[in-house]
Amino acid sequence: MDLDVTSATRTLAYAANDLVRLLRGRVLDPVLSGVVLEANAHGFVLAGTDRERSMRVSRSARTHAEGRVLVPGRPFAETLRNIDSPEVRLVVEGRKLALRTPNARFALPLLDLPSHPGVREAPPRVGVLDIDVLPLAAVAASTASRDDALPVFTGVHVKQLGERLVFVGTDRFRMAVASVPWESEVAELDVLIPANLLAEIAKQADDAEVVLHADADRVGMSWPTTEVSSTVLDAPFPSEARHLTDAFDGTVDVAAADLAGAVRRVTPFAGAQGTLLLEVGDAEVRVRAADQQFGDAEEAVKATTSGDRITTAYQPRYLSDALQAFGTQTVRIGLRAGNRRSTVITGAEPDPSGAELHYVLMPKRT
Amino acid sequence: MDLDVTSATRTLAYAANDLVRLLRGRVLDPVLSGVVLEANAHGFVLAGTDRERSMRVSRSARTHAEGRVLVPGRPFAETLRNIDSPEVRLVVEGRKLALRTPNARFALPLLDLPSHPGVREAPPRVGVLDIDVLPLAAVAASTASRDDALPVFTGVHVKQLGERLVFVGTDRFRMAVASVPWESEVAELDVLIPANLLAEIAKQADDAEVVLHADADRVGMSWPTTEVSSTVLDAPFPSEARHLTDAFDGTVDVAAADLAGAVRRVTPFAGAQGTLLLEVGDAEVRVRAADQQFGDAEEAVKATTSGDRITTAYQPRYLSDALQAFGTQTVRIGLRAGNRRSTVITGAEPDPSGAELHYVLMPKRT
Repeated sequence: MDLDVTSATRTLAYAANDLVRLLRGRVLDPVLSGVVLEANAHGFVLAGTDRERSMRVSRSARTHAEGRVLVPGRPFAETLRNIDSPEVRLVVEGRKLALRTPNARFALPLLDLPSHPGVREAPPRVGVLDIDVLPLAAVAASTASRDDALPVFTGVHVKQLGERLVFVGTDRFRMAVASVPWESEVAELDVLIPANLLAEIAKQADDAEVVLHADADRVGMSWPTTEVSSTVLDAPFPSEARHLTDAFDGTVDVAAADLAGAVRRVTPFAGAQGTLLLEVGDAEVRVRAADQQFGDAEEAVKATTSGDRITTAYQPRYLSDALQAFGTQTVRIGLRAGNRRSTVITGAEPDPSGAELHYVLMPKRT
Repeated sequence: MDLDVTSATRTLAYAANDLVRLLRGRVLDPVLSGVVLEANAHGFVLAGTDRERSMRVSRSARTHAEGRVLVPGRPFAETLRNIDSPEVRLVVEGRKLALRTPNARFALPLLDLPSHPGVREAPPRVGVLDIDVLPLAAVAASTASRDDALPVFTGVHVKQLGERLVFVGTDRFRMAVASVPWESEVAELDVLIPANLLAEIAKQADDAEVVLHADADRVGMSWPTTEVSSTVLDAPFPSEARHLTDAFDGTVDVAAADLAGAVRRVTPFAGAQGTLLLEVGDAEVRVRAADQQFGDAEEAVKATTSGDRITTAYQPRYLSDALQAFGTQTVRIGLRAGNRRSTVITGAEPDPSGAELHYVLMPKRT
């Protein structure tokens, strides 16, 4: 008997879409552009790999005949996304997989399953994360570099420090350090996860808890329906420790959203050089920029300031990204006088969940 | 005294944005990238031109000192768009125009007003259009070509036929003919309006009625706050008459949105050739496509059919655009057998407003 299964269209469409997104743009071998569709007693399993990364999604469905085929991933996902019947029946018909709804039939050619390398299982589990910490891990991923020429900076450093798990991302101009409570199941954990994989997992995970998996070669995350894994990056990662001291020359406590708004309004005046000045005043911080062509601008934002009245220059986008990571929180900005000495932004009040974010910015030379 | 005026930020931001959009990407002379800002006893007037097109927006505001300056258009619009204070004060300070809010100042350099050519007035009025007909005029504009190599097809032909005004757009592969009730104030009207100008006006107009202006050289539209005009295109335009006969070999009455959904789902299977087949059946119309790589697909849509059972091939995007122009209406599709004989889509029921749309498609050779 050939594969024959009926599924909720949306469930299957989401699974196919997540799979295609995770593996997007990374497939050279045509057979890897296929996704393995399996119908078994419990429902369907959809799996794919680009050799480095593997993903497997299992969901319940009504199986009429078990089976296993390889179908082109993107066309499969696109066809499912467009179907608006609530249910879809997948049936192997000759050398095609037909997707049938009451009044339509969409038939995709089958690919050669025996030539597919198979989808690897995730490595052993090392502990469990609350899903609420994933957005902080995604902030660390957002500061990583997208430039493959320096592979180490395309990764997020994940390490266990006592009862905390720390995620560090950097592109050398900025760094985000997210530290979250952690009940480890292993003695040691220190791996480099591809940042874009971590960012994608943070979007896709939809259960209260996410299991972290790791061994010397591979790292992964899983939740009841889904398992994702990848080879680890292998390179020494810079230390964040020197930035995270409390030795600041001045501090500013300010509503992150208010300052982000001022940055947005003044940024067009920062010109081709792209330099914004942050000027500490008595009960305010001023955002300033000037450009010969565009003109000049200045906006004051109420703040609680202490220590020296320092003026520091930033790349507008980096300052804006950093503030946005804190949403509507009040942040404390720690400033150090002198060229090339890092600024550290963190929440002014400790978060009740115990999670912490430190966002480090390297100022521009002026 | 120098210009000094306080305005609602949003009013001024919308005016600047509309002006910059209408003249976008068409300015070679730097002085034309400026907008003329005038403060007078009634409020402000914002005006701009790219020599071909002219636009003038007048809105009320609190003028403290009258005056007239030329400021860079895009920076002015962008700065206003970002300001979230409800009011903004514009003051000339030295050689800059300062945009002031309670805690911020944004200063733009003034451009040389005497070197600006001035913004032309619209030609005389020729009649009044109900704003509800503008979306139909925009459909005619949407079928025009974007290819400046054939200027005539970048225009919409607007002509008076008795008590109706007809808008015709075409790129030679399709044509939309919108006919609306019209109380003319002139004996004759026959002009070619740039299609992208008409589309932009249809988006921006926000009053119940729009006045149409025209003479031999220029055409324009105005409503209480705004006046837009342009030089007319000068070229002979193809006639729509031969397509608009009732001589069809078969017709299909079908819900436009249902058929558009089927077209959307089947289109990915149309492959690189991009050919969709519309197959008339007994009480249905079928949308079909097949591609060696992608697979094949077929969807049936309930319909009332008459005449011959014709199969016609279309470019998917053209068929999709045509159906979308009719929203949730039931349409009548008039089909003609034989190669290169046009299909005409129109509403199955007359519209109570008296407006009519005929959408002509040239089928693909199969």
